[in-house]
Amino acid sequence: MKSYPHISLRLSLAPETLLGAGKAALLQGIAETGSISAASRAMDMSYKRAWYLIDTLNGSFAEPLVVSVKGGRTGGGASLTETGRTVLALYRRLENTVRTAAADDLAELAELAKTAEV
Amino acid sequence: MKSYPHISLRLSLAPETLLGAGKAALLQGIAETGSISAASRAMDMSYKRAWYLIDTLNGSFAEPLVVSVKGGRTGGGASLTETGRTVLALYRRLENTVRTAAADDLAELAELAKTAEV
Repeated sequence: MKSYPHISLRLSLAPETLLGAGKAALLQGIAETGSISAASRAMDMSYKRAWYLIDTLNGSFAEPLVVSVKGGRTGGGASLTETGRTVLALYRRLENTVRTAAADDLAELAELAKTAEV
Repeated sequence: MKSYPHISLRLSLAPETLLGAGKAALLQGIAETGSISAASRAMDMSYKRAWYLIDTLNGSFAEPLVVSVKGGRTGGGASLTETGRTVLALYRRLENTVRTAAADDLAELAELAKTAEV
């Protein structure tokens, strides 16, 4: 359950290229499951869509964030590169930084909002 | 011109009710012009759409943010209430707070992004 008002981040990497909650969750899912299909399934997202988002993200950075691993004992999978782990960690830190910094202003806004006690 | 990466705020007042850059600009336009039609025209937005957004905003707070003034010397217009001015000021402060707090994390991200020098 989310309380209101709350803020979320839209991080623009380039014109038309956002890194937001969805892409961050996808990166995190890949880090946790080692698989794009498992990560996308957990988000109720098609594999095709997940690949498109990852491709966009990879293209926005000097190094790719996600690499796929073919074959091997587990039959292949995907993992975050060091850049991918760094970007995900930065995004999470940015979320915390912003939420902490915004807390007082949001509390003032909540006093004016109808939904303050929801 | 915007530089990248940069962040923008999505402030959720209630489920499905956002206060973002567009609504803030509309409130500011009304404060500056004293008119919904002038404010919406300056944003290339229909009057109908502007009214819809204002109605949504007004419904999200205990007091309305915008009131329309009928008749009088100027033939009517609209203005921000004290709550409207407070909410707009809070939103602007929140933007500044967040941008200041996020600056270091964004600078690190810019180093990893392809668009760092754009």
